[in-house]
This record gives sequence, structure tokens and C-alpha cells, in this order.
Amino acid sequence: MEKNAFLKNETAKKLYETVSELPIVDYHCHLSPKEIYEDQPFRNIGEIWLGADHYKWRLMRTAGVEEEQITGNASYKDKFLRYCEALEFAAGNPLYHWSHMELMKYFHIDLVIKKENAEKIWDQANAYIEKTKMSPRKLMEQSGTELLCTTDDVADDLVWHQKIAEDPSFRIRVLPTFRTDRLFQIRQSDYPAYLVQLEQSSKRKINDYEGFKQVIQERLSYFVKMGCRCADIGISEFPDRIADDKEAGRTFEAAMKGEAATDDQYRGFIGNLYLYLAKLYKKEHLLSQWHLGAIRNCNSNLYQRLGADCGVDCMGNPINGNDLIRMLDAIDHSCGLTDTVLYSLNETGSAQIASIAGAFPNVRCGASWWFCDHKRGIENEIRIIAENASLGNFYGMLTDSRSFLSYVRHDYFRQILCNVIGQWVEAGEYDRESAVKLAKKISYENIRQVFA
Amino acid sequence: MEKNAFLKNETAKKLYETVSELPIVDYHCHLSPKEIYEDQPFRNIGEIWLGADHYKWRLMRTAGVEEEQITGNASYKDKFLRYCEALEFAAGNPLYHWSHMELMKYFHIDLVIKKENAEKIWDQANAYIEKTKMSPRKLMEQSGTELLCTTDDVADDLVWHQKIAEDPSFRIRVLPTFRTDRLFQIRQSDYPAYLVQLEQSSKRKINDYEGFKQVIQERLSYFVKMGCRCADIGISEFPDRIADDKEAGRTFEAAMKGEAATDDQYRGFIGNLYLYLAKLYKKEHLLSQWHLGAIRNCNSNLYQRLGADCGVDCMGNPINGNDLIRMLDAIDHSCGLTDTVLYSLNETGSAQIASIAGAFPNVRCGASWWFCDHKRGIENEIRIIAENASLGNFYGMLTDSRSFLSYVRHDYFRQILCNVIGQWVEAGEYDRESAVKLAKKISYENIRQVFA
Amino acid sequence: MEKNAFLKNETAKKLYETVSELPIVDYHCHLSPKEIYEDQPFRNIGEIWLGADHYKWRLMRTAGVEEEQITGNASYKDKFLRYCEALEFAAGNPLYHWSHMELMKYFHIDLVIKKENAEKIWDQANAYIEKTKMSPRKLMEQSGTELLCTTDDVADDLVWHQKIAEDPSFRIRVLPTFRTDRLFQIRQSDYPAYLVQLEQSSKRKINDYEGFKQVIQERLSYFVKMGCRCADIGISEFPDRIADDKEAGRTFEAAMKGEAATDDQYRGFIGNLYLYLAKLYKKEHLLSQWHLGAIRNCNSNLYQRLGADCGVDCMGNPINGNDLIRMLDAIDHSCGLTDTVLYSLNETGSAQIASIAGAFPNVRCGASWWFCDHKRGIENEIRIIAENASLGNFYGMLTDSRSFLSYVRHDYFRQILCNVIGQWVEAGEYDRESAVKLAKKISYENIRQVFA
Repeated sequence: MEKNAFLKNETAKKLYETVSELPIVDYHCHLSPKEIYEDQPFRNIGEIWLGADHYKWRLMRTAGVEEEQITGNASYKDKFLRYCEALEFAAGNPLYHWSHMELMKYFHIDLVIKKENAEKIWDQANAYIEKTKMSPRKLMEQSGTELLCTTDDVADDLVWHQKIAEDPSFRIRVLPTFRTDRLFQIRQSDYPAYLVQLEQSSKRKINDYEGFKQVIQERLSYFVKMGCRCADIGISEFPDRIADDKEAGRTFEAAMKGEAATDDQYRGFIGNLYLYLAKLYKKEHLLSQWHLGAIRNCNSNLYQRLGADCGVDCMGNPINGNDLIRMLDAIDHSCGLTDTVLYSLNETGSAQIASIAGAFPNVRCGASWWFCDHKRGIENEIRIIAENASLGNFYGMLTDSRSFLSYVRHDYFRQILCNVIGQWVEAGEYDRESAVKLAKKISYENIRQVFA
Repeated sequence: MEKNAFLKNETAKKLYETVSELPIVDYHCHLSPKEIYEDQPFRNIGEIWLGADHYKWRLMRTAGVEEEQITGNASYKDKFLRYCEALEFAAGNPLYHWSHMELMKYFHIDLVIKKENAEKIWDQANAYIEKTKMSPRKLMEQSGTELLCTTDDVADDLVWHQKIAEDPSFRIRVLPTFRTDRLFQIRQSDYPAYLVQLEQSSKRKINDYEGFKQVIQERLSYFVKMGCRCADIGISEFPDRIADDKEAGRTFEAAMKGEAATDDQYRGFIGNLYLYLAKLYKKEHLLSQWHLGAIRNCNSNLYQRLGADCGVDCMGNPINGNDLIRMLDAIDHSCGLTDTVLYSLNETGSAQIASIAGAFPNVRCGASWWFCDHKRGIENEIRIIAENASLGNFYGMLTDSRSFLSYVRHDYFRQILCNVIGQWVEAGEYDRESAVKLAKKISYENIRQVFA
Repeated sequence: MEKNAFLKNETAKKLYETVSELPIVDYHCHLSPKEIYEDQPFRNIGEIWLGADHYKWRLMRTAGVEEEQITGNASYKDKFLRYCEALEFAAGNPLYHWSHMELMKYFHIDLVIKKENAEKIWDQANAYIEKTKMSPRKLMEQSGTELLCTTDDVADDLVWHQKIAEDPSFRIRVLPTFRTDRLFQIRQSDYPAYLVQLEQSSKRKINDYEGFKQVIQERLSYFVKMGCRCADIGISEFPDRIADDKEAGRTFEAAMKGEAATDDQYRGFIGNLYLYLAKLYKKEHLLSQWHLGAIRNCNSNLYQRLGADCGVDCMGNPINGNDLIRMLDAIDHSCGLTDTVLYSLNETGSAQIASIAGAFPNVRCGASWWFCDHKRGIENEIRIIAENASLGNFYGMLTDSRSFLSYVRHDYFRQILCNVIGQWVEAGEYDRESAVKLAKKISYENIRQVFA
């Protein structure tokens, strides 16, 4: 693959020169703060690429690789060779793009990933890892990362964030994000156990829904004290009604005793909790990120063997627009909306969501997410935001990744962004000078202000 | 922005030469017949652009402009400056295209709209308005408008249409459209009051559903006498069943007394009324336009402050294909379908709707609508019609606008149309001579026949 | 239209040279084995094109041609002339592409199809038909067909397949496909009569659900003995739950007596039968094809006059992702999934379906289908597979057609495929050598292995 392959016109190349060196603000990722703090050098490219990356696992499965060679007991070298063989025929897949970009940027290897080069890449990459003692922090620094937001459970003690903050040798800001999924999962069998974790984290007993909300509020204060500027949620369901406090309290208190909520009770409850959290976020001026429409752990055989995040999640159905309107309007009505970013896993609903966002203050669409995070998906999301809102207010890219190599996705995004804007300029549809400003706003300046 | 920026190939430019001067038949718009008749000169470009245009208000909101500077008490000049600043970063938004096209066509200003040019544009535009005494009729004549259809409530007395028709100095045909939304809205609190309006307009008492239908029929006769050739509907719901006359009568008569219909009663009722109206339209050979899938007034704070049409409507969910089939088939079965045009606000359903239209005689898809009325949306709708039906039968563009400047949207459409067809010709996929005929049919000839 | 019009770049042209002459494996079509066996010469191009092709009928209807001239008593010549007139303005419709490709490939006529050429084409084509004694087998051989799978009801005796297999003069493999739609249609009034057909075909009495399943199993064994490698289903509904055997048995046995199942019973029943069939297919290592989301016979006037397959079917709503996951997971859990191919008639759901396929072993997306089988639809499906899975595992094209001329659709597909891959190569996004291998795999090699 060619360097900067996604810049297809001259204006795109010039725009890219103005943004390629801007720092990275990665405002949503799944990196481990522990790994960042400990900064253990990597052992080999097989481990880096295939130790935990469910995107790659999934691709190998669709290429017909046996599970043994994906998540099983095969050696990292064997897994790596299989991955290279699979990637050879994954034209048009974002992993084809990312993997080549990672090889070029972090390993200075410009070989095509395919069966006949696999052994050579294995050797060269591992030699480079050893020579440079490649480690998480080195990759982050090399990537120009200025700030990143991890994804942290409400009950997390944030001890690794604290250690990182106290380490003067490390200049990158690593901030926690208030991720609330588990608060909502009252129908899971481990919910009572989770409430115990919450109690321990807050040193406060949860006797009822009021007490639960009190603990949430305290946890949020702690997160904010630790530098948190973002909240996040990514549960499968989106509420189709909003229970009042009394009903939500009853549902919660039944769940405390292990009683399962009905579908209707559950949906009313999550509606109530969405609204409660929105009020807290407004007070703290947080950026509230809504990840809409994922279905988790669809393949029960693989889920039971490998656990969550093993590559068997799927796009959910498009979200019901009426539900989204109801929730946004209820929040806007009751307390005003904090800065809110909507991400849809199903592209089908993107334009509708953008039209809904446009009817509410402080609500905007985010970058294309997960299964949509490929060249066409990114272009599509840029166009949808442009068509339905002011592209100039877009917060731009985030990695959403568990891998320290994934900063190339920012580069991927910036190339694609510059290419789209460059096309408009060259077609006489947009002003050349405004274009330079616009590219910078989206690549860095807009999101930077959130953390100013 | 460059002149004719949407013509990207040589064939497109040649095709455009054959259609750019064809008259405009604007078969659906929201212009005020009163304003057309009175023909008051405009005062300034701020009033023209920002006095009532909810597209622009919405864009300013998504760019973060304060409401005071959008719909509030700020001066038109301030509002105009804010709009120019917002537009600078609205690359890819149709307002970017339209606003520049309007400046070029009606004001002969070819400056880029951006902060640094805003004052200059304000001055030049207003000087031009004053010099030319720019007024509604002048803009319409300058645009080559031959005929337009306004959107008129069934109870409207059409007095302004009458006055326009009687004015020999004005040659453009201004026809009323039979817009039936309010007939359906039996659950709104002002429905009984609306029935009184209907009674007054028809000088006939409405005692029951039969009487209601009688009044509708008489109103339609009056509209037709006044030149009406089109009917239109744009309510949020689409019927998922068709109540029989007896049930619909009961629902209606309960509504007369202010009793609220249940969801199911309501949907059965609107199904019945759709069918009744379809029979009337068939008899009168009307063009029946169905605007599908808008959700109105989503943001209740802004709706309460500013009323309807303030820029907080949204795309609805994609319409259920089974419902659409049921209704079209029922009409076809009972009386035959009049010439019917389907518009979908949610692009997601467009291809399905096109496939359904293709199964019924006289049903076709219309131009891309409202939130979809941008370059990509127009291209997309042209392709969907082409893929699923005979593009040669497409009725082409309409403005759907409240602004006298919006005739540039016809120019925008014609450029995009010529560009798509031109691409096909240059790629060796379509015949050059047929292309000229096709472009003319869609730009003017097809729709002209409806009003022959 | 130009020859090879869909190859837009130099790499595409080179790739196409490597695949254009590869044999055709048409793994799903609706050709009549009787017609293949009898090999009657054709009489005229009107009969070939308009005798049974509901795609063309539909296009003519959308162009405003009277039914008399489509399916009525008009002569084939008149129908042909009307079709040419309609096609002239069907730019961008796949019939425009296919019809010109058919004229060029099978009749060596390179005239543009339009009114002024219609008589000339009629004469030249018919002269050619007569001169060459054009017949089904000649067309198939000329097309390079190596193998094709017809679509056969479970009760079919496959006598024509047997005769074809026994004819040493004919080298193309013609295999039956186990098409199960009628097994599911317990709510149709002719279901009891269909059961009698099944009994006759298997010479075994069906007394209950167990007996029914026994018959299905025996029929499948017979089909497999006759060379069947594929199963297929294309009913409108997709199961939203899976009844247990006891409940499904009750529902079936009620249907035997002519008692109508409720919606809920019906959906539970089809869920159970899907699962049962999946187990059989797994045992026989069949390729199981799921055609999702068609609505049949939407226009009841035309359906009553002309019967099924008259051009009034439509795209159904997008399938519910949760239903698809439930069914795939249940199969995977109970017996493992056989090689399964998903086709969606509504493009809207394609990316979601691809994401779901990617979570299950042996499940992949198929070629774009029916209303989606046009240039943009094919490109779109290629991209969706590429983005969500390994494009290298795609089984490629099938005609799904009733016409012996439709092999040009393979050529159409191969051009479009080479064009997409060629774009990637020329843009520096994919390796040139891998591209040659990939094009061959998708055009022929992958599907060939299924029938090895």
C-alpha cells in the first residue's frame, strides 16, 4: 500500500500538510491505564497485533482460519502468518489499510502483507521491536498524542490514572471517562455483586434508588476531581419511555434483591437513569457520549468459550427516531442538554440521527464508529454531518481502540477528511482558505477546546 | 463558489445548455399568494434570508449561534453577519451552495460568504435591492417561472389566488394545492374549531362523517374551479390499516365532540380518509403528492417559544413498506390510482418505496425532499429512480420553499441531473442523443404535461 | 452502449482479461430443466425478451406502456417496439445495460436501443435467430457455462434433471436445488393439496409433523443423489422465535386439517422448521442460501389477472437483526452451521447483515439480489463485504434468472468487480498481484470448490 494513499487530489495533499503534525486528542479509547503506567516493552508483533484485537480475530474467522490459530494455543508466529495470509485477500477492509499503515509508521516496513512476505515481516518487525525496546509510552509519544480519555467503570478507583498523573516523566494527559453501562444492567445476574463494588468504591451503603443515585453523584465528583471531562454509555437498548422516580425506584429495588425486571420495567428504568445522569453531566459541563446500537456477544458458543470482546458483536437495528427525540427533549426540557455526541453503529440511521441532533442545542454527531470506521464509512459520516449540520463544529476522530498502534487511525481519518474537503475545493464548491481552517478545526482545535 | 460548479464533465455542460433556459414549473412550494399579489419590495438581505427561513435558523444553531441572533431581537444586520460566519464552515451543506447561487443570480455578487466578506456583502446586496426595487414578482419573472402551485388548506378561500388570476399584468400561473393535513388531525385540541372554519368556507353544516366528506368534496370542486391540479398531504403518521366507513364515522363523530381517538382508532380513521380522498382525486384527475415520514416540532422548548416551522422538525423513521403497499393496493383495487407521487424524508427507505411504486400504475417517486435536498441526496434519488423505474417519467424538481430566491434550487437540480446523465454518456453507458431528450423531459416537459 | 463499458481504468481492463474467459458456475437460477432438455429453438426476440421476463414488464409499466402491450394480446413485435421505446429513457436501469449487452453478445448487434432503431433491431435479431437456430443449449454453451443450479420444489420428481444427466451430448452440469418455500406455507389454502404432492413424491403417508419431517429428509436424500449441492429458501417472513417440536407439531397438524395458524403460531413454526432443515443440510454439507426480505404479489389486481411472477413483487422491510442472530445462533448451538449464504433484498440492512454474518462460522453474504442487482448495487455489495469480512471468500455472481440470455449478468458482474478492485490498485490501496488472484477467486474459483 502506498504512503498517504487516501489523499487523491492536490488540494488534499496541501491540506494534509497543515494538519498531519497537529497533536492527537483521543477523546474515547479503551487503552489500559495500567499498561500505560507500567510501560512494559512488547515481545513480538504477533502479541501486539493478535493478543487482544477482536477486529483481527473476526477478519481471520471470515477468511476461514481455524479458531486454534486465532485465539487458541497456536504460537504467536503461527497466528501472525495466518493473519497475513487472510489479509492478502481482505482488499477494501480497514484492517488492510490500518495494518499496512502501522507497519510503515511504527516499524518502517513497507512490504505488502501477503503470504509470501509474512515470514520476512515477522522477522523484521520483531528485530525492530527488540532494537527499539518498543513500549506503550514510546508509541504514544511517537504518535504525537497530547491527551487521551480511557473508558472506566463508575466503580473504578482510578489508581492507575493517579499514578500516571504523578509521574513527571510522562507528559501525555491520561483522563478517565465515566462509563456507566454497568449501572444500567439490572437484569444481569451479577448486578447485586456490582452494587457491592460500587458501595466499596464510595464507602457508602446503597439501600435504595436514592442511595444509588447518591453514590453515582459522588463517584462522578471523584472522577471529575481526577480530571474526567467525558461520560460515556454503550448499552444495547435505548429507552423507549422514561419512568418516573417512584417507578424507577421500585424497579431498582427489586433488582437489588435479584428480581428480574420485565422488558417494560427495564426500559422505563433506563429512561429514568439516562435523565438523572444527564442532569449530573450538565452540572459538571461534561461531554456526554452516546454509543447507540451495538448488540453484544451474538455468538453464544464463542462467547461462552472466550468471553466478551472476542469479535462476535454486531450492528444493532437502527435506533427508533421517536425514542431519541423523546429522550433528548426530556433532558432539554428538564435541565438543558450538556454537550452531547451521538454515535450510531448502524449507518442506516445516521442521517436521521443527524437531523434529530440538529433540532437540539449542544447535540452533534460523532465520528463513524467500529463497524463503520472504514474509508467509505468515514467519508459518509463527514458528508452526513456536512449535509445536516455545520461540519465546522465536528469533534473529529477518536480511536475507540485497545491497541497502542491504533493512532494511525487518526492519520487515516485526517487523510480522508482532507480528501473530501479537497474534492470540494477542486470542484469549485468550497473556498480554499476556509478549507485550511476547517481541516484544522476538525483535526484538533474543536476537541482541544473541550479539554482547555 | 464557482458558477455552474456542479457540472463536472463536458457532456454535462452541453446538456445543461439545452435545459438551463427552460421555464420553471414549480409544482409544490410554500410561497404566500398574498405576498405574490401584494408584491412588496424587500428591505434588506437579512430580512429575505433570515426572516422566516428555518433551514438557515437550524444551520446557525448547529454552528453554535445564540438564539437571540437567530430568531431573537438582534438586528437583521447582526443576524446576517452571524449567518455568514456560520456558513463559512458549512462546507458540503446545501445552504452553502444555495446561498452562493442566490448571491450570484439575484444580486450579481460573487464574493465567498465568510466572516471577512460579510459586511461587504451586506452593503452590496442591500444597495442592489434598493436600486432594483427587488420584489417577489420580479424575482419570479427573472427566474423564468411559468407556473407554481402553492400549498393551501382545504378551508382556504383562495382569495389571493383569485386576485392574482384577475391581474392581467402578471403572466405567471399561480395555482392552489389541496393540502389536507388538518382534515386528519382529529386528535389536536383545535380540531372542532377547524371544523367550524370548514363549515364557514363551505357554508354547510357538518353533522357527521358523511357531512364532512360532503364538505371536502365541495371544497375540492372549488379548488379545481380555481385551477387546482394537485393535492398534497404531509402528516407524520402513515395508516397501518383502513377502517370501514362505519368505524371511521364513529371515530370522527367522537372527535367532533372533543373525544380523543386511541392510536388504533386514529390510524384506522386516517386510512379510511386517505382512501376517500384518493377516490375524489381520481375523479378529478389530480396529481396526488404524498410527503412521507416527517416528525414535526421535536424540540418542545423551541416549539413553544417560536411555533411551528422554526427548524426543529426531523426525519421520521422509514415508512413500513407493508403499510404503503396496503394503502396503494386498496386504492388501486377500489377506484384505480390517480397520478401519485411519493416523497420520502428518510433516504433509507427510498429504494424500497421505489420498488413499491413500480408495482402500481401511475405511482412514481418524487424529487428528494427537505433534509435530502442536497447534492448527494439529489444524485441518490435520481439513481434510485433510474435503477427501479423509468427515469424518463420523473417529474423532476420543485422548490418546496417559502423563499422567492429558492428558484436557484431548480438550477442546482438541473446541473446535478445533467451531471449524472453526462457521466453515463461519457462512460459509454448511455446514448448521447437520448440524453438530450431525457434531460429536457425531466427538467420541464414531463411536469408541463400535468398542467397542459 | 460501449463494449465493456464498466471497465473504467487500465487495471480493471487487465484484471478483466484474466477472468472474462473463466467458466460460469451459476449456483442459483430459475431456468427450466425441461426447456434445457427439450432445447427448442427460439422464434423471435420478442418472445425471448418479453415472453416471461417480469423485470421488463415492470419497466414498461413504469414507463406508462398499456398492459395490453406488455402481457396482453398484442403481438410480440408490438411488445418489442414498446419495450425499445421504454428502454430509450431508462438510463441507469440495469435493463438498459443487460439488454444492450445481450444484443451485442448473442446477436452481434451494436445498435442503440431506441425508438428509431427498434424496427431494425427486430429484423436483424430475428434473422440471426433463424440463421443460427438459436436455442437454450447453444446460448448456454456459448456463454461458457460449466454448471448451473435450478430451483426445484421439494416434491419435484427431477425427471428433467435425470434426462439431462443421461444425455451424453450435453456437457454442462445441471443440478437441482432443494427449494423449501412451499413446506413453510401452512397458511395457504392449497397447503393440504401440497402435502398430497409431497406424499406422492415420496410414496409415504404424512400423518403428523414427524412424518412430514421424515418425508423432507427422504426427499433431500433423493435430491442429493441427483446431484443437489444447494438448498434455498425465499419466503417473505423471517422467524422471530423458534417453537419447540411439540408446539410446531401442533401447528402443523392443525394446518393439515386446514386450520389457519395465528401469526405467532406461524412464526414459531417456521422457526422450528428452519432449524430442522439446517440440521439436515449440515449433515449433507449443503450450501444453504437464504433469500431475505421479498414481498410477493403486492398489486392484487395484476396478481389476480396474471398470477405470480408478473412483476409486482417488492423489497420488504429490512430484516430485524435480532431475529437473524437468534436463528443463526440457535443453529450454530444445536448442530453447527453449514455453509450459509445470506441475500438481502433491501440494501438498507446489508451492512448489518454482513456484521452478523461475521459473528458466525460459515456464514457469508451473497451477491446483490434482484432489485439490487444493478451497477451501484453490485459495487455496494462488494464494498460491504470488503468492509465487514474477507472479500476473498465471496462466492460471486449468480443470475437468479429465468432467461437463457442472462449469462451476460456474469459478465456485467465481472466488469464491475474488476473495476472496483482496479480502482483500489490504482489508488495505491491494494496490491496488484493479490488483485489478480482475488478477481479469479471471486469470479470462479471459490464457488467452483463447492461443486468439486
